[in-house]
Amino acid sequence: MNRAIGILGGMGPQATVDAMNKIIKHTPAHCDQDHIPVVTVSIPDIPDRTESILNHNDKPLEKMSEYLKILEKAHVGCIIIPCNTAHFWFDQLQQRTAIKMISIIESAVNFVQAQNISEICILATSATISTQLYQTKFTQKSISCVVPSYDLQEKIMKSIYAYKSGNIKNSKIIMSEVIKEVNKNRKIKFLLACTEIPLILEDNILNSPENFIDATDLLIQTAINWYQSSPSEHCS
Amino acid sequence: MNRAIGILGGMGPQATVDAMNKIIKHTPAHCDQDHIPVVTVSIPDIPDRTESILNHNDKPLEKMSEYLKILEKAHVGCIIIPCNTAHFWFDQLQQRTAIKMISIIESAVNFVQAQNISEICILATSATISTQLYQTKFTQKSISCVVPSYDLQEKIMKSIYAYKSGNIKNSKIIMSEVIKEVNKNRKIKFLLACTEIPLILEDNILNSPENFIDATDLLIQTAINWYQSSPSEHCS
Repeated sequence: MNRAIGILGGMGPQATVDAMNKIIKHTPAHCDQDHIPVVTVSIPDIPDRTESILNHNDKPLEKMSEYLKILEKAHVGCIIIPCNTAHFWFDQLQQRTAIKMISIIESAVNFVQAQNISEICILATSATISTQLYQTKFTQKSISCVVPSYDLQEKIMKSIYAYKSGNIKNSKIIMSEVIKEVNKNRKIKFLLACTEIPLILEDNILNSPENFIDATDLLIQTAINWYQSSPSEHCS
Repeated sequence: MNRAIGILGGMGPQATVDAMNKIIKHTPAHCDQDHIPVVTVSIPDIPDRTESILNHNDKPLEKMSEYLKILEKAHVGCIIIPCNTAHFWFDQLQQRTAIKMISIIESAVNFVQAQNISEICILATSATISTQLYQTKFTQKSISCVVPSYDLQEKIMKSIYAYKSGNIKNSKIIMSEVIKEVNKNRKIKFLLACTEIPLILEDNILNSPENFIDATDLLIQTAINWYQSSPSEHCS
């Protein structure tokens, strides 16, 4: 058995569980012992990432660095963060640990490029959008990206916070309105670049999977590939 | 924030995720930061518990002890094991750690007693049944317990292993047959005393929740109560 996948989670807790579920679903296993080892730190007192970025403070970085140490002590082989917005501090976190970190943004951008998709609409938090976390990488690969209008972006945040507060029904209604509005003039593929959004849009995805690209799914696929190809000296 | 709930999981991975989901569902939270901190070790190479017990070996104990150390290093405040069968080694594990462990068996038995339920049918692995993990405790409290016949117990194991191997549909069909057969002569409440069973029977539970007692749910409730009442000196 290779070293475990480490999950720096809690942002939010349901997205963390979704990531763990996706590891299980994407692993061909015939018994418990065939599954991939995972160590998860889901300590949700990490300050709100969007708020911190918009207010120019690095408080989440300090908390994440603290919880990274738990994964280091557990001797995990790689670390993933099922939160797109938290990737604002990805490089700084990677500098603080010798353990390989796998980026959700790189995983998603590489997939979109490999699929020869030329244009995509990014659904993410206002902080992920305003810091151009995805746009910069897409532009480097000559992939056009559309971001929702200011008003729609406000709705997206409302939906995400509704989901996090347990108001699932309302959250789904608002996000479906966003999808409908963006699709009004022309059809476009959506990149679900906030780990709550695949959960909010689960019914829409079930109905028309071809319209959505789930960044969490791509992060998990990359992590599984890492696990399956990690050399035997990584064995614990 | 109090110390995290530690989950010694991977037995199986889906039951571990179910336990994490139940912590989220049972926590009144309005934002990420309101949720309970959780550290989960889901390293599924722990040998099959049922096989080990039936073959009189303690291999799972050694692996579980190893993974317990990860939770100790993470300074969790309590430890739960979302696997009923693994509770065969509960006392030995508790002797090896200073961290409070919360028993799924004690949680379930206390609930059944508090509800004044006088008779219950235990659905569990053959090892949980044959080692009388539940029966001993129920008898001490003068609660009658019924266990399925040899043939039905074989079916229960077939269903659990089908679920673990990803054959969800077949697993559900077999377990539903067991429920129907036990209920043929008279109605009885079922204690779901294997952490895969609430997942297998999710549709049956949805249809008639009053007929089922989910041991995982009770373990989680006990752990949440521990978290909410843990003294402030437990703060990290």
